[in-house]
Amino acid sequence: MSMRIYLSKDLREANSICADDNRKMLAENGVLLLNLMGSPGSGKTSLLEHTLPKLPDSCRVAVIEGDIYTAKDSERLSSCCSQVTQINTEGECHLEAGAVGYLLQEQGMLASDLVVIENVGNLVCPAEFDLGEDVKVAQLSVTEGDDKPAKYPLLFREAHCVLITKLDLLPYCNFDLQGVIRDLQTINPELKIVPISVKTGEGSEVWVEWLLEQIKAKS
Amino acid sequence: MSMRIYLSKDLREANSICADDNRKMLAENGVLLLNLMGSPGSGKTSLLEHTLPKLPDSCRVAVIEGDIYTAKDSERLSSCCSQVTQINTEGECHLEAGAVGYLLQEQGMLASDLVVIENVGNLVCPAEFDLGEDVKVAQLSVTEGDDKPAKYPLLFREAHCVLITKLDLLPYCNFDLQGVIRDLQTINPELKIVPISVKTGEGSEVWVEWLLEQIKAKS
Repeated sequence: MSMRIYLSKDLREANSICADDNRKMLAENGVLLLNLMGSPGSGKTSLLEHTLPKLPDSCRVAVIEGDIYTAKDSERLSSCCSQVTQINTEGECHLEAGAVGYLLQEQGMLASDLVVIENVGNLVCPAEFDLGEDVKVAQLSVTEGDDKPAKYPLLFREAHCVLITKLDLLPYCNFDLQGVIRDLQTINPELKIVPISVKTGEGSEVWVEWLLEQIKAKS
Repeated sequence: MSMRIYLSKDLREANSICADDNRKMLAENGVLLLNLMGSPGSGKTSLLEHTLPKLPDSCRVAVIEGDIYTAKDSERLSSCCSQVTQINTEGECHLEAGAVGYLLQEQGMLASDLVVIENVGNLVCPAEFDLGEDVKVAQLSVTEGDDKPAKYPLLFREAHCVLITKLDLLPYCNFDLQGVIRDLQTINPELKIVPISVKTGEGSEVWVEWLLEQIKAKS
């Protein structure tokens, strides 16, 4: 049995047009736009707190923090990034391209080398909305269970990189790491997969190196 | 800055009408409808695997499993519940009242004492859709972080019971349990709050007792 999908074709089309505009602006200015997605509590803000200080000083970074309510994540990031902008969606479960395009222009983000969007914590809806990003990075924490790639395939199929986070908790969880890596490779053979713990630092070098390659390729 | 909410008033109204129909059917038949919600991987299916065998044999239970894709959760539950029905939403991020009403009638669920809906793993959208349920139970696992009640207030404000799950992982997580309980009580003073681990059994008795009270009150 299936249910109807109520989001209209027109709405998706309007988003796609804004996403194309974003792509054009980003290409003209040599800015890499990264869309970071994952469940609530998969560790997106912690990843950014860990990653941003490891980028070279010459790399200009801006962050767009997407949350339904509160500026908690922006406050956490303000110590490691000079340009953090909060979008509160006030109930909406994902970000859309129009709001991102507005911030890129109005907040002077096109002078950056890297703009990171931390999307709303949600494994479903954000993946459906093209923001004009160059790379989609998906997070899956080992505490969420190893069935998630099969149950939420869209995000993992569309991602360029999947970070399997909270690796330090693996000994306490019933999570088949090799099985998940195989599942992800089946869904998306081109995928970069990095098991990582920001607590122990495991996997951190591989992730930062991959990120720097993406920034360099766009500059 | 805020974004527009595109879901139309009409759509919400249509859902509310179906939810009222469900409430009427459930009242006439003395069936308790429980809507279980939480993030992907917060342990909803594990909770049901743990809980259903603890209910008395005389208690007739049916489960509606909401997933975007796959019947993995239904397969897991089939050994502990004789009536499990899967809804695959095929992309949609929440269940709606019309589909639930259809199953209640067509699958003979109105002969049950308890119908449990395991909603799609999502901390945002399911809370916005009234299914006609008697009780909303929200899960928050300690691995998700203690900032979640403030960041996703709607679900916790509307819930009758919040289960703080994966309590066995508390020693390995930076999670302020007492702070979260205080936050939840502030958002919703009437809330039943049960810290629980289905691995160790901690909190299980309190939860099952509460559930049996709800079933009894409706019968």
